[in-house]
Amino acid sequence: MQLGMIGLGRMGAAMVRRLSTAGQQCVVFDVQPEAVQRLQQDGIAGASSLEELVARLQRPRAVWLMVPAAVVDPTLDKLVPLLEPGDIMIDGGNSHYHDDIRRGNALAVKKLHYVDVGTSGGVAGRERGYCLMIGGEKDIVKHLEPVFTALAPGVAAAPRTTERQQDDCTAEQGFLHCGPLGAGHFVKMVHNGIEYGMMAAYAEGLNILRHANAGKASREIDAETSPLRDPQFYQYDLKLGDIAEVWRRGSVISSWLLDLIAGTLSRDGELREFAGRVSDSGEGRWTIDAAIDEGVPVPVLSAALFARFSSRGEADFANRVLSAMRKDFGGHTEKPDAPAS
Amino acid sequence: MQLGMIGLGRMGAAMVRRLSTAGQQCVVFDVQPEAVQRLQQDGIAGASSLEELVARLQRPRAVWLMVPAAVVDPTLDKLVPLLEPGDIMIDGGNSHYHDDIRRGNALAVKKLHYVDVGTSGGVAGRERGYCLMIGGEKDIVKHLEPVFTALAPGVAAAPRTTERQQDDCTAEQGFLHCGPLGAGHFVKMVHNGIEYGMMAAYAEGLNILRHANAGKASREIDAETSPLRDPQFYQYDLKLGDIAEVWRRGSVISSWLLDLIAGTLSRDGELREFAGRVSDSGEGRWTIDAAIDEGVPVPVLSAALFARFSSRGEADFANRVLSAMRKDFGGHTEKPDAPAS
Amino acid sequence: MQLGMIGLGRMGAAMVRRLSTAGQQCVVFDVQPEAVQRLQQDGIAGASSLEELVARLQRPRAVWLMVPAAVVDPTLDKLVPLLEPGDIMIDGGNSHYHDDIRRGNALAVKKLHYVDVGTSGGVAGRERGYCLMIGGEKDIVKHLEPVFTALAPGVAAAPRTTERQQDDCTAEQGFLHCGPLGAGHFVKMVHNGIEYGMMAAYAEGLNILRHANAGKASREIDAETSPLRDPQFYQYDLKLGDIAEVWRRGSVISSWLLDLIAGTLSRDGELREFAGRVSDSGEGRWTIDAAIDEGVPVPVLSAALFARFSSRGEADFANRVLSAMRKDFGGHTEKPDAPAS
Amino acid sequence: MQLGMIGLGRMGAAMVRRLSTAGQQCVVFDVQPEAVQRLQQDGIAGASSLEELVARLQRPRAVWLMVPAAVVDPTLDKLVPLLEPGDIMIDGGNSHYHDDIRRGNALAVKKLHYVDVGTSGGVAGRERGYCLMIGGEKDIVKHLEPVFTALAPGVAAAPRTTERQQDDCTAEQGFLHCGPLGAGHFVKMVHNGIEYGMMAAYAEGLNILRHANAGKASREIDAETSPLRDPQFYQYDLKLGDIAEVWRRGSVISSWLLDLIAGTLSRDGELREFAGRVSDSGEGRWTIDAAIDEGVPVPVLSAALFARFSSRGEADFANRVLSAMRKDFGGHTEKPDAPAS
Repeated sequence: MQLGMIGLGRMGAAMVRRLSTAGQQCVVFDVQPEAVQRLQQDGIAGASSLEELVARLQRPRAVWLMVPAAVVDPTLDKLVPLLEPGDIMIDGGNSHYHDDIRRGNALAVKKLHYVDVGTSGGVAGRERGYCLMIGGEKDIVKHLEPVFTALAPGVAAAPRTTERQQDDCTAEQGFLHCGPLGAGHFVKMVHNGIEYGMMAAYAEGLNILRHANAGKASREIDAETSPLRDPQFYQYDLKLGDIAEVWRRGSVISSWLLDLIAGTLSRDGELREFAGRVSDSGEGRWTIDAAIDEGVPVPVLSAALFARFSSRGEADFANRVLSAMRKDFGGHTEKPDAPAS
Repeated sequence: MQLGMIGLGRMGAAMVRRLSTAGQQCVVFDVQPEAVQRLQQDGIAGASSLEELVARLQRPRAVWLMVPAAVVDPTLDKLVPLLEPGDIMIDGGNSHYHDDIRRGNALAVKKLHYVDVGTSGGVAGRERGYCLMIGGEKDIVKHLEPVFTALAPGVAAAPRTTERQQDDCTAEQGFLHCGPLGAGHFVKMVHNGIEYGMMAAYAEGLNILRHANAGKASREIDAETSPLRDPQFYQYDLKLGDIAEVWRRGSVISSWLLDLIAGTLSRDGELREFAGRVSDSGEGRWTIDAAIDEGVPVPVLSAALFARFSSRGEADFANRVLSAMRKDFGGHTEKPDAPAS
Repeated sequence: MQLGMIGLGRMGAAMVRRLSTAGQQCVVFDVQPEAVQRLQQDGIAGASSLEELVARLQRPRAVWLMVPAAVVDPTLDKLVPLLEPGDIMIDGGNSHYHDDIRRGNALAVKKLHYVDVGTSGGVAGRERGYCLMIGGEKDIVKHLEPVFTALAPGVAAAPRTTERQQDDCTAEQGFLHCGPLGAGHFVKMVHNGIEYGMMAAYAEGLNILRHANAGKASREIDAETSPLRDPQFYQYDLKLGDIAEVWRRGSVISSWLLDLIAGTLSRDGELREFAGRVSDSGEGRWTIDAAIDEGVPVPVLSAALFARFSSRGEADFANRVLSAMRKDFGGHTEKPDAPAS
Repeated sequence: MQLGMIGLGRMGAAMVRRLSTAGQQCVVFDVQPEAVQRLQQDGIAGASSLEELVARLQRPRAVWLMVPAAVVDPTLDKLVPLLEPGDIMIDGGNSHYHDDIRRGNALAVKKLHYVDVGTSGGVAGRERGYCLMIGGEKDIVKHLEPVFTALAPGVAAAPRTTERQQDDCTAEQGFLHCGPLGAGHFVKMVHNGIEYGMMAAYAEGLNILRHANAGKASREIDAETSPLRDPQFYQYDLKLGDIAEVWRRGSVISSWLLDLIAGTLSRDGELREFAGRVSDSGEGRWTIDAAIDEGVPVPVLSAALFARFSSRGEADFANRVLSAMRKDFGGHTEKPDAPAS
């Protein structure tokens, strides 16, 4: 089947290559001509404008957007006038699912279809395949199955779940029609919320391991600082790369994220190339918003999100308030800590 | 090599079977004779007393304890007088690493060796192998390598990490000498702390998905309750088993824990057989204790632990304090919520 | 000055009485005629319909709504057609500040004014006065100052802050024009977020004190439960009422909330009349939403909110997921805990 | 009554002055002679050595230690040989209550008495009085009542609690015998835990208010950053000093901590003199330790503690792990944020 792809960044370009390898025809476009040219050099059809892209697609057209969330609406504004009833827009980026519902309803008035696809897999996806969480009309999703099949990892990518009935559910292949408009990005949003929580679990645990030699450091005696009561219990110099590696086999916490960090820590146990200012791209926030709307407690997922905010200095004023209060009631002056390590 | 195993519960018995399958000789003991008999029926040497166990082992003896943490010291009290200089005690259970240090030092006076082994793998370990985190003297750990090799999953259990230098580290096989006395249980403790965090991340995320139809429920209008501002955004009836399944392939949050819960949710998306009173067996607590001693922030791991406490009703008095305050300042009376679902 | 008051519940009726005591004229209405009659018996002018209320007010009319957040819009729908340019609507309830902005802009088209007032003080407000956080047009807020002055506690209610310049700011009197449309409810929202955090701080601390005798309880020895390592350190039977009382004088944590709970705990240290299902009325949620929008970390305020959700059973499914995972990997079965206490 | 005071720092010197003003006789000592001299200049008896201090006290001697927690044991080592049966040691600092129990038991063997006093009040205590939480033997505590009465604020410092029976409990005066050895510092420890939680509640709330103008800042459009969906809702420039001030009267969140920060924010709403590296002096940590031992969930108090750790850079390595993972799976590179503000 034929697919138009708009947005040839890290994700979009790799997806096109995976689709092509699987025999799907793509016509591609990006606002940066070089991105188009790179794929053309590998025999993939490129368009130099949205008009050309639309013109080269058979009807009903299927156009996949793989652009930053903030660019989806401007792109649709230009694209929609070029489309015809029956055509299908697919948003595979990180849109907020509220926007899917709004867009889908607006497009339906024009007899255009809208499918939202939460796409997980990152830079490894070209080889490993992408996990696809899909929302939209049932028959339209069905129509796009060849595309989803080509992008997804396939059932062989993991041992089969014995409990699953051999029904017609595609979940085992790595893609799933989750529900109506927005359901794909809703599930992807929660996926990322979980991702934040898992990442933080590893990060906090590794931080404890890294400071397992805290008893070797000397501490000042003053009224401001609690002495480490039992320094003899914190005398371990642990090799984080080896530990992450050993956890990869047989342990309860083995995972793909662990596979990745085991590699990086084996290369540099200090992670010196990183400053530790951690971005968040929206889904983690929206996950907490949704939990609050639903009245569902998410102490872990929210703590993970807020740790990212704090990593970027966003707690600084709150911390100044704390220092101010400590001075106000106790006469405490801030003391410079040992350099962060 | 020959190993004595004391404690033939869920873990101990399975480990003996895995060792026997791999050609290691075991002599086994348990305070419950039937546990010994079950293994004897499969041709494994059983002892009817600690004395017999010790008598049947070649020197230097290696005796592995796989008993509840609270039973380790009483067992050692009986066992140690039977041992001779050079013998090795291995604690493979969930001891606090402080106890390892205390015990190891006490045994060293008697020229006995002590090795602490954090063991992960659960009921699947017999087939998949056990991830072993080991603390103790280097040469003693080296001496026990045949046992560790037999228990561990082996390098083939996961794709190799490309960054790892092909040194002599055993981490790739699934066992690791982490450091001196207590280092094994220290690393296992943090492993379990991470486990709590990961489990909570999945649990919270799945809870959000389960309540994605919150907009379908009607809510009363009163001053006590915030109306759901946008019920149209919470109309999804999601199939959790399918979603967990689709995440198993290609997604960033794939893991062994996810493999397990995908199976269970595919069987019963409501998890009706569980009441949700979640135990904790100590390591999660000790992880937070260690983090606090080190001054390392663990907002996620602690939130996961406290959610378990709360699941067992341990927040009840705090909640009554909140209700009392609300009545005191606002005249609010508690209202019965809709039945928990 | 003359004020119409709609909504004569716990808050509205008491505010009318305080206004009357201070010499302000009120005309009151409530959908429940008895609520009107109760105030009429004390000589306050009552109306039997919105029409009558509007008719009895001098122009420009000032009408204060003190109704549940969900009832504000329906009330405005009926009221606005009865008003004339220059009239002023005041929402003193717990509206979301987004709604203030929407309503204020819609009313401005009709040349009506809208003022949002976050009102704190609870049932004690009639005697102590109300803390008022106000948003809206500067001259309209100025016009209403006699009302605010009558409702607020006045400068004598607390020792003066030495650092404050003797400017014309009304903050010392207990009311403040915080900013344009919505600013009053925004500040009140955050006030309530802080309130949730403070309440939780007391509740958690008191819960620790209450369990200071945990070492007296016997615990089973099994692999599921961590034994209390040092029961000798948890042998205190503490009197919570006395402790809360002693903290009221001279301590860093003295506060009005503490004053209240000290009284209640002195009467019943067990708080037996409460079940511990803690409601939340919206502002706590919106505070977290705002923090997330701003990228500001709020680990404490969010933890307080989520503890309330959990108190109402909203973590139950997540907890069942945890129990299911524990059974899956470790063969752990849920054990009934000691009855919650 | 006569009291020896060892440790004339911020707290000790002020307490001596308050005692003297109330007519209690003090003999004072400090390792820094100038600290002794400053009090001698005001007519208070000073000692130039522990021996002299002991010699000048009538029997049974009462000696109050007001020194850093880490200095208590060394001081006792020197002091105890100078004492005689029946003498009383009082530790009024921030000792861990475990140490109280250990010390009290050791001193009892020598027929010396030990009283632990948690002291709250800070630099304002000299004028306002100190809140005293006391552990030890009942008759010894009774014997010291003149000292406690002089230090405590007295019943007039706050409105009386109507629910309290007019029994002989001293709580209303601002001091309380909480229970046996260690109970005073246990209650003080939890007091400080609550203090951390309350402080964090204010700090987080004020941080939200401070960023209420987030919608005025421009944000880049890229795949790394979630655009602020509704910048029109974050256009407020709020005056934090005025807001803190208005909350002091009539609001639910009025407190002494708020009184303090209202003053500081009125002077400098930016708190420019603080860097935001927030110390913790032990009790907050021990509070969480105790909660974990008891199995009591403390999500708010722990989050407050961990925010302090993070303010000192202790999350840095965890954050680098997060950045490493993001690069590993998504190819994300860290982007420099806007300067923290």
